[in-house]
Amino acid sequence: MTDQLILHEYARSGNCYKIRLTAALTGQTFERREYDIMKGETRTAEFLANVNANGRIPTLQVGERFLPESNAACWWLATGSNLIPLGRFDQADVLRWMFFEQYNHEPNVATLRFWFVSIGEANFNEVQRANLPGKRAAGEAALQLMDEHLAANDWFVGGGPTLADICLFPYTHVAGDGGFDLDAYPAIQAWIGRVKSLPGFIPMDA
Amino acid sequence: MTDQLILHEYARSGNCYKIRLTAALTGQTFERREYDIMKGETRTAEFLANVNANGRIPTLQVGERFLPESNAACWWLATGSNLIPLGRFDQADVLRWMFFEQYNHEPNVATLRFWFVSIGEANFNEVQRANLPGKRAAGEAALQLMDEHLAANDWFVGGGPTLADICLFPYTHVAGDGGFDLDAYPAIQAWIGRVKSLPGFIPMDA
Repeated sequence: MTDQLILHEYARSGNCYKIRLTAALTGQTFERREYDIMKGETRTAEFLANVNANGRIPTLQVGERFLPESNAACWWLATGSNLIPLGRFDQADVLRWMFFEQYNHEPNVATLRFWFVSIGEANFNEVQRANLPGKRAAGEAALQLMDEHLAANDWFVGGGPTLADICLFPYTHVAGDGGFDLDAYPAIQAWIGRVKSLPGFIPMDA
Repeated sequence: MTDQLILHEYARSGNCYKIRLTAALTGQTFERREYDIMKGETRTAEFLANVNANGRIPTLQVGERFLPESNAACWWLATGSNLIPLGRFDQADVLRWMFFEQYNHEPNVATLRFWFVSIGEANFNEVQRANLPGKRAAGEAALQLMDEHLAANDWFVGGGPTLADICLFPYTHVAGDGGFDLDAYPAIQAWIGRVKSLPGFIPMDA
């Protein structure tokens, strides 16, 4: 018997889209349950006790077990697929780009998208205003690093798509929402086209 | 023939200690090359071109290939060892805590240690002062989440130590350096004792 899969999510989040895209590319499906993070629906006592004590979406439910952290959920879904290479170095190198995504990319590129789209620049608080220049520079540095890598390589690891590409795609392809100029990164733009052409690809609003 | 291993590091960094600890616990050794991040030695043209274009340590060199991101380097070293469980859910759950470490823990617990120890509170700039309350609260929340998990479990995943424990240990056990009060987290303190008792354990200054 296969465990039932439920994605606890907020559909507009790129971290949730990652998981849906990994599932689509590996031919898996799950029930989707939506929580409105703008209304605090992931901070209720019930959510903290039953879904994720860290109060965050996405969380992938696998039968009776719960897996927070988007990239860990993608890893679970992609296990046994060709999105995770078997070679020791290549497998660690896929994780290298996934940790880069969560440390250097998401806190800057995704956070500025959230701030500009969901909060609005006129409503930024003092901490957000103080952090804006640093996050802008760090996000541009992350995109520049990706662009330089992709100028010499079609994919982040090896000769084909891996989970590294799938985890970096969601927030990169909508970086413009946060005020980043993707025209400055031609290799990223070409790679976005390659990801969109993958068999089974689904868009963010699917 | 085995590839030569070189750890490009700054020894006082907990991210570098993670890698040394993983190597010690799995019986591996490498050459260590030290770079002083306070003197910009990871931002030189030579370092960016030959070690890590992201300008950061640690980077694990495996023969002619370079692996940035501390947790990815730990994964490479631990591959095939009992620090990485083979079960599909448990393996993803180990990564769940490793992503938690890089997203919720390191940017708060480790960053405040760096600020207080290496910069000094009197020298904080405006952005650091603006971020201090938020990073203090987020670091405490990360430690609280760990403490609650460890109150019910000896280890983060399954019944024994995994890479999740090894990657969370370094910055947690020196959290006091950043002004966090470990006395408030008795389950973390007991777990620190268990990690220190692991066969092959080495301290941070080894």
